[in-house]
Amino acid sequence: MKISARNQLKGQVVEVVKGVTTSHVRIDIGGAVVTAAITNEAVDALNLDAGMKAVAVIKASDVMVALDD
Amino acid sequence: MKISARNQLKGQVVEVVKGVTTSHVRIDIGGAVVTAAITNEAVDALNLDAGMKAVAVIKASDVMVALDD
Amino acid sequence: MKISARNQLKGQVVEVVKGVTTSHVRIDIGGAVVTAAITNEAVDALNLDAGMKAVAVIKASDVMVALDD
Amino acid sequence: MKISARNQLKGQVVEVVKGVTTSHVRIDIGGAVVTAAITNEAVDALNLDAGMKAVAVIKASDVMVALDD
Amino acid sequence: MKISARNQLKGQVVEVVKGVTTSHVRIDIGGAVVTAAITNEAVDALNLDAGMKAVAVIKASDVMVALDD
Amino acid sequence: MKISARNQLKGQVVEVVKGVTTSHVRIDIGGAVVTAAITNEAVDALNLDAGMKAVAVIKASDVMVALDD
Repeated sequence: MKISARNQLKGQVVEVVKGVTTSHVRIDIGGAVVTAAITNEAVDALNLDAGMKAVAVIKASDVMVALDD
Repeated sequence: MKISARNQLKGQVVEVVKGVTTSHVRIDIGGAVVTAAITNEAVDALNLDAGMKAVAVIKASDVMVALDD
Repeated sequence: MKISARNQLKGQVVEVVKGVTTSHVRIDIGGAVVTAAITNEAVDALNLDAGMKAVAVIKASDVMVALDD
Repeated sequence: MKISARNQLKGQVVEVVKGVTTSHVRIDIGGAVVTAAITNEAVDALNLDAGMKAVAVIKASDVMVALDD
Repeated sequence: MKISARNQLKGQVVEVVKGVTTSHVRIDIGGAVVTAAITNEAVDALNLDAGMKAVAVIKASDVMVALDD
Repeated sequence: MKISARNQLKGQVVEVVKGVTTSHVRIDIGGAVVTAAITNEAVDALNLDAGMKAVAVIKASDVMVALDD
């Protein structure tokens, strides 16, 4: 599958924390760790676990820009 | 200002493309370039331009996880 | 690529309208037409055009529920 | 109420799963099931339950487009 | 229609600016002005114009929290 | 930090409800209460608690417009 989302940051899963319905998946993209909040069903469907290679995917319209003071 | 968004990726603006209402800002975060689609007003308010240091800010609930085949 | 987004609605592109930075892509998913607002770059990268098979992908946290009166 | 969101997919609730703060609501839109992650408060406010008619509402800027390989 | 989105801020449209595909609608909610970026089609479908009463609708998962320094 | 998000509504935290991974933070912005669904980690990082001054931050592309009947 190829997807329109402009941001596809390759890395490695470093942690999966499951809640009752929502999980947090942390992906080390090299120099930074990205946190994704996704459904438990998605974690199960992809069999996500620490150590796996994974891609953090983000639609351009969901990215903001900030300036440090 | 400190913000709740879990993903704050520091980098440098490499391109600002303005449309009539929506701009695309590309930020090199080191090894990857992140594209942000934001309003022209935001570009003007922050005086965004190529070469500036900037931070790509993304809420965790807007990050998906993908696996390459 | 397999993606965590829970909603993947298969259909056919019926229209692509390009703005200066943002395009609107309409996908007939069978009985309903879904509109996606994505970047022009994404339209070009996927070579999207009317008639193509495509999938509308939506993260579960971006779906709301409404009741008709 | 009329809302600007371009995607309003009519269907029937097939499942409501409550977490501590976030619920997952599944709506059969005819041929496909859409999953919505919404707050428990919203589920209570709308009295959502399996069997009810409901509409999955999605803003166009939250829809991505993918191509199967 | 009743919608699950937890944030429904009533106000008055003060400005509608149309781009080629995306419009910006500003709503004075009393003490603050909220900017919505929506499709031109939505502006046309709702006949949005300055002076009209309108509601800014925002899903809870799209709201961040910040602290001023 | 200055951020591109066009909507920054100042107020006071009136409630913080923690789930297993997701918290709900309610901010009284004067005349209306805004609900934010954010990660528990964000609540901890900002030490959010009832009574604190805080800002509800919302990207313009996440705001919809509705008309009451």
